[in-house]
Amino acid sequence: MTAATIRLHPADNVVIALADLGAGTVLPEIGVPLLLPVPRGHKVAVAPIALGANVIRYGQIIGAATQAIQAGEHVHTHNLGMGAHDTDYAFGTDLRPLPPVTEARQFLGYHRADGQVGTRNYLGVLTSVNCSGSVARFIAEACEKEDWLRDNPAIDGVVPIVHGTGCGMSGKDEGYETLFRTLQGYARNPNFAGILLVGLGCEVMQVPDLIGKGRMRGDGAFRYMTIQQTGGTRRTVEKGVSILREMAEQSAQAVRQPAGLEHLVIGMQCGGSDGYSGITANPALGAASDLLVAHGGTTILSETPEIYGAEHLLTRRAVSREVGEKIVERIKWWEDYTGRWGGEMDNNPSPGNKKGGLTTILEKSLGAVAKGGTAPLSEVYKFAEPITTRGFVYMDSPGYDPCSVTGQIASGSNLIVFTTGRGSVSGYKPVPCIKLSTNSEMYARMSEDMDIDCGDIVAQGVSLEEKGREIFEMFLATASGQRTKSEDLGFGGAEFVPWQMGAVM
Amino acid sequence: MTAATIRLHPADNVVIALADLGAGTVLPEIGVPLLLPVPRGHKVAVAPIALGANVIRYGQIIGAATQAIQAGEHVHTHNLGMGAHDTDYAFGTDLRPLPPVTEARQFLGYHRADGQVGTRNYLGVLTSVNCSGSVARFIAEACEKEDWLRDNPAIDGVVPIVHGTGCGMSGKDEGYETLFRTLQGYARNPNFAGILLVGLGCEVMQVPDLIGKGRMRGDGAFRYMTIQQTGGTRRTVEKGVSILREMAEQSAQAVRQPAGLEHLVIGMQCGGSDGYSGITANPALGAASDLLVAHGGTTILSETPEIYGAEHLLTRRAVSREVGEKIVERIKWWEDYTGRWGGEMDNNPSPGNKKGGLTTILEKSLGAVAKGGTAPLSEVYKFAEPITTRGFVYMDSPGYDPCSVTGQIASGSNLIVFTTGRGSVSGYKPVPCIKLSTNSEMYARMSEDMDIDCGDIVAQGVSLEEKGREIFEMFLATASGQRTKSEDLGFGGAEFVPWQMGAVM
Ligand SMILES: [Ca+2]
Ligand SMILES: [Ca+2]
Ligand SMILES: [Ca+2]
Ligand SMILES: [Ca+2]
Ligand SMILES: [Ca+2]
Repeated sequence: MTAATIRLHPADNVVIALADLGAGTVLPEIGVPLLLPVPRGHKVAVAPIALGANVIRYGQIIGAATQAIQAGEHVHTHNLGMGAHDTDYAFGTDLRPLPPVTEARQFLGYHRADGQVGTRNYLGVLTSVNCSGSVARFIAEACEKEDWLRDNPAIDGVVPIVHGTGCGMSGKDEGYETLFRTLQGYARNPNFAGILLVGLGCEVMQVPDLIGKGRMRGDGAFRYMTIQQTGGTRRTVEKGVSILREMAEQSAQAVRQPAGLEHLVIGMQCGGSDGYSGITANPALGAASDLLVAHGGTTILSETPEIYGAEHLLTRRAVSREVGEKIVERIKWWEDYTGRWGGEMDNNPSPGNKKGGLTTILEKSLGAVAKGGTAPLSEVYKFAEPITTRGFVYMDSPGYDPCSVTGQIASGSNLIVFTTGRGSVSGYKPVPCIKLSTNSEMYARMSEDMDIDCGDIVAQGVSLEEKGREIFEMFLATASGQRTKSEDLGFGGAEFVPWQMGAVM
Repeated sequence: MTAATIRLHPADNVVIALADLGAGTVLPEIGVPLLLPVPRGHKVAVAPIALGANVIRYGQIIGAATQAIQAGEHVHTHNLGMGAHDTDYAFGTDLRPLPPVTEARQFLGYHRADGQVGTRNYLGVLTSVNCSGSVARFIAEACEKEDWLRDNPAIDGVVPIVHGTGCGMSGKDEGYETLFRTLQGYARNPNFAGILLVGLGCEVMQVPDLIGKGRMRGDGAFRYMTIQQTGGTRRTVEKGVSILREMAEQSAQAVRQPAGLEHLVIGMQCGGSDGYSGITANPALGAASDLLVAHGGTTILSETPEIYGAEHLLTRRAVSREVGEKIVERIKWWEDYTGRWGGEMDNNPSPGNKKGGLTTILEKSLGAVAKGGTAPLSEVYKFAEPITTRGFVYMDSPGYDPCSVTGQIASGSNLIVFTTGRGSVSGYKPVPCIKLSTNSEMYARMSEDMDIDCGDIVAQGVSLEEKGREIFEMFLATASGQRTKSEDLGFGGAEFVPWQMGAVM
């Protein structure tokens, strides 16, 4: 059944028109006829809003009434402004605990020696530099032809982790440190049963530096070599295959065991957004995120350029001033970063956005933040920093999908969930990626790539709560081994994209 | 036979010690005993050099005598300084025409409709954005299983051109323009018989923008599609395979035909340099470059950070003030570029370099410039700009090998030659890459990856001229179809690295 409007959160004092509504339309949640027409995608007040009072969408402040608003009135630029809080970083003033859960849930995962739990069981061939990328691929391809891998149902495959950087760069700036964290993070991701690191030998990102004094993995399933020391391509491939064979034999006993949801770390992502993202897939994912967090799990919000302008709302949800201030620090960093190239941070609604019903920068950015539900913000991380707290967290990243997901996986994600309106078809080995379509038209066209259609929220009146539960159940099923569409299609071999930050020298 | 010294160019007034030479050693080219010991790698004057006169190495000025120097004297920091020309951009004052050639040479290549000639005959699957990278790979992998490709000796293969950028970027800055040129350049490289461009659909680097009003290739062998419009992964792969099959049928008649050397465009590169690079492989390549240019061909010098400090010598070789000023402009651009990240351009000899015998920044940078021989500099290009002049040219790029080669191939190179001391093992489809080792020790260890050993210049007294002819002959053989070591090993699927310049958003 198609509804005329959607309410994105129980606390909202506006609803969103799902079709052009004519004057005189009577909406059940209001009971009085609309005085004026409201276009599709625009907001209607469901209760009187006093002058200066907050307008609430997604359960979040999107601005304040610039005049008294009646129930049934169209809410847009003529009566809604940014309000006083837009330059005010309040900390922890909007902490709303999630409802307690009655039933403990589990998934079936691979328990690692360091206490992490994997949702997949891959072996990885990690590279320090582009110059060892082809050799890493040759090693993985050679392994795929071997019986010990093909006939071993315990191993999901051998994944070459290949990229375009690692040399021609400074050895001591923020770009270097970021790549360093990213490579270390992949080496430690629990979806790998073991890692072989392959370098060329003369690169800036030196293998001995990466390894440091200890090994890169607490479970010891880590080996390394350089092509120059090993004596060229053929010898390196031969030795690599033999190392991975040993690792595969050690990993062959791995079986999935029950694990609490505190071991699920889910990177949330949106890419190819459309006008439906903010009313279907993103808030539905927000509901699923709140459910997972209530069950003790962790969800990661990222993509700083897309939340720009709504950081004031995240600081209000921060569990402490210290956590909130980290968000503010990241925002300032980004203003500097984009300024170096003569650009600027700008997520203001465009004329087209405004025509579509988005009034303020808060409202636009909240379309992306909606993925993060309403849970308290428990910690803020830099790109690829190891995530050690539980709950809803923030990891800084660009909005660019493969780069942002790369950071989330380096931070420890063992599951990715990705909302898309236009239809993104990527995957991110070693971590499965669940695709949520924002609209049923795209889902119908690209159903072989999409895991869940969230367009039925609009097309069939499915509630956000119900859709949130469906997504939550898919989290658990996927974490326990059910394959996603992008895994079945074989994605994940080209999407490792470290955040390249400095000058290429 | 091992020589005690090497003269790097007939015009030089110094030679380089190939071993530690004791006081009293009599060098045949000097005839008087050395007054003091000269360490390996250091310079000895072979003729008297007056106070203020130029010291010449590689046939180029490396500085001026700060005191009168006698034949047989050690030349280093105590008697050699930068001289007056170090801040003086003179233009065209050192133009030395190459000796005329007596015999016209040819290679066997694939003549394209636009007048270019390929040295290989690949089909390419080019991507606008990382988000179509996996699908491009799926298409190429699916083709490799088809009889029409496997059984078609006229086609060298289907190459997916996959990268990490194309979205999460500004759509109007220099980074965008540079990527734009790079993708267009690959589409037009003569080593491709045809190109299929695959986009996702919603990326910043839009397929319609790339195509523009015409097609991307003059010969019409160009098709494109987006995954979102085609309806997802499986349909795109199916359609892609069918398009490439058509292209393969059209290309099946391609045969190699004689072509003049004006159709050879050779990108020169060094990576993993060592103390021998500047006395063996680089000057030998310089001799080969001069030979090719004398025969009407084109060689490209690049890697601006590595020639920094020697640009004054390139401006002197420029065929016009206009060409010389382009080098100066690029140097200023680089100073700004690295400054944005708090770095600076610095190619001064380090204490270790000085200990090894390098005295001035000119001398150090000339170790890289030596690849370019002594021919006049006929034009200067930006990264990935189409090269339309013949002769010895400069294309701006980082020193980072895969990125620099990517620019050279986008500029139209149909052959790459790469000197390496530490042992680089990369390849660059669709263009063959000839590897020159700078020392015989590494060659012995990595001979399966190296095409020519230049270490015999030191180890066996092979002359630079002779080695230059050997390299020149390999240019022609490789261009005519002889496979290089890296081609036999299957390299070239991971080394497409566009120069990513701006902020990742
Ligand atoms: Ca298996
Ligand atoms: Ca997004
Ligand atoms: Ca994104
Ligand atoms: Ca170099
Ligand atoms: Ca290089």
